Amino acid sequence: MIDKLISKIQKTGAPIVVGLDPMMKFVPEQIKKRAFQECGETLEGAAEAVWQFNKGIVDAICDLVPAVKPQVAMYEQFGVPGVEAFRKTVNYCKEKGLVVIGDVKRGDIGSTSEAYAVAHLGRVQVGSQAYRAFDEDFATVNPYLGSDGVKPFLKVCKEEKKGIFVLVKTSNPSSGEFQDRLVDGKPLYQLVGEQVAAWGEECMGSGSYSYVGAVVGATYPEQGRIMRKVMPKAFILVPGYGAQGGKGSDLVPFFNEDGLGAIINSSRGIIAAYQQEQYAKYGAENYADASRAAVLAMKEDIAQALAAK
Amino acid sequence: MIDKLISKIQKTGAPIVVGLDPMMKFVPEQIKKRAFQECGETLEGAAEAVWQFNKGIVDAICDLVPAVKPQVAMYEQFGVPGVEAFRKTVNYCKEKGLVVIGDVKRGDIGSTSEAYAVAHLGRVQVGSQAYRAFDEDFATVNPYLGSDGVKPFLKVCKEEKKGIFVLVKTSNPSSGEFQDRLVDGKPLYQLVGEQVAAWGEECMGSGSYSYVGAVVGATYPEQGRIMRKVMPKAFILVPGYGAQGGKGSDLVPFFNEDGLGAIINSSRGIIAAYQQEQYAKYGAENYADASRAAVLAMKEDIAQALAAK
Repeated sequence: MIDKLISKIQKTGAPIVVGLDPMMKFVPEQIKKRAFQECGETLEGAAEAVWQFNKGIVDAICDLVPAVKPQVAMYEQFGVPGVEAFRKTVNYCKEKGLVVIGDVKRGDIGSTSEAYAVAHLGRVQVGSQAYRAFDEDFATVNPYLGSDGVKPFLKVCKEEKKGIFVLVKTSNPSSGEFQDRLVDGKPLYQLVGEQVAAWGEECMGSGSYSYVGAVVGATYPEQGRIMRKVMPKAFILVPGYGAQGGKGSDLVPFFNEDGLGAIINSSRGIIAAYQQEQYAKYGAENYADASRAAVLAMKEDIAQALAAK
Repeated sequence: MIDKLISKIQKTGAPIVVGLDPMMKFVPEQIKKRAFQECGETLEGAAEAVWQFNKGIVDAICDLVPAVKPQVAMYEQFGVPGVEAFRKTVNYCKEKGLVVIGDVKRGDIGSTSEAYAVAHLGRVQVGSQAYRAFDEDFATVNPYLGSDGVKPFLKVCKEEKKGIFVLVKTSNPSSGEFQDRLVDGKPLYQLVGEQVAAWGEECMGSGSYSYVGAVVGATYPEQGRIMRKVMPKAFILVPGYGAQGGKGSDLVPFFNEDGLGAIINSSRGIIAAYQQEQYAKYGAENYADASRAAVLAMKEDIAQALAAK
């Protein structure tokens, strides 16, 4: 799957993943109105609104980007119907040829991580049958529990030719509270990054990259520069561009000399573009066109930054 | 909710939480057979089997223990029907008067943690209506992202009078890989524990305990002793008893002088008791009676250990 992700990045020329994190405040009124007319102001209605919203965006951007990253929390909050909307979104994106990164940040003791790995990347056995529960291509994984929380994901990734992105240095303001603390003179995130590199050694795609990637926030470009060297074969998933404050020029350190090695996420900067002054001319009715324009602008911003490096 | 948990511990005399982590291999054949006859060997069939299995156990133990802890991964692996079985299990346990600790180990950047907090402990707004998606009483939280990943949970806890247990030192073999690393001469888990104490200061129940608790594994009693002092007002959720290797005598350091402050989890040791030699006489047909016997034995083991201290 890392090979597919790389080939799609090369084909689209856009190392971009669109975060499908549909908060209700991003969903245009006309979509909510239709969904509530059909299902009422219920969890089902919210899930239907989210699904229709996503579908519009995916249709508008699927030829431009290699991947999407649905954030499962935004679906879980709408209960079982929300989780069904997550499943439908994953499936629809895959039908449209997109690589799907499930932003689930799971991680637990071994037997439990195994169940999460099965849920999101693998197949579960039911009697004589096997089923795929959610079937993303990649999942994000929290490393706090150490190797036994991560290895069950690696096992499933090997079987299914899928991948993970392990949280190393997250994009949020307080990420340094634990992640930056020095251990033997090195920040904790660097220790985690070294483990990501070690886990990745035995999980190589057919080219120079492993299918064990890392998450490092665009909001921390200096740390990105260091982690790029610590994990040369890891693809870095970079959140924090746009709404969280990361700029095009901040992204350069995350890429390798081959122009690869990083994929930049933007969520509300793309999916709620129509709510920004810059794209207000599209109006809520044409929110998906605004998202398309925002993707094109982001693609240009990254290309310029990489060209100027 | 911490007050309710404490009062139920005192009433039952059992500082015990039963982990409802229903792997398919724990579910007796007769339950699987009935569920598959009704729903086929499908995700729906698996979810029905899990739900019927849980129901039997809950009916057999609900008068003995204060709380249960469903592990959401075991449900997620069965997809949307599995998540529905999780929801039904949570609701049923609450109907039976049990405190429900959702073992979800969520944690993310602020806006995303907010969605998780809403999903598992709060209410989500849909138009003019508000709904509870899963509605556990407590949730477990992963601290790797720092305060902004935890504070949205605290906000919802304050509004809803619910609580969280933050992962501090987990029970698994490799938990030391990152958690034990020394930062300024103290292990990382201790720093996290100090934060748990700080977060808890502003979240006190009506007695001596905060509704910000911590997870410290029974498999690490020495670390438990230290953390008991670092977080005197935090209730400690202690996994790892039984199947993971923790013994009754290991549990003493987790309790305060008042005999409170800890709640011990056992999952497969209780729910799959009928598969152990000790309880084999019950047979698969009476698996729930075996679970009841295992709870009584665990209660006795803990009482003896505490009496001998």
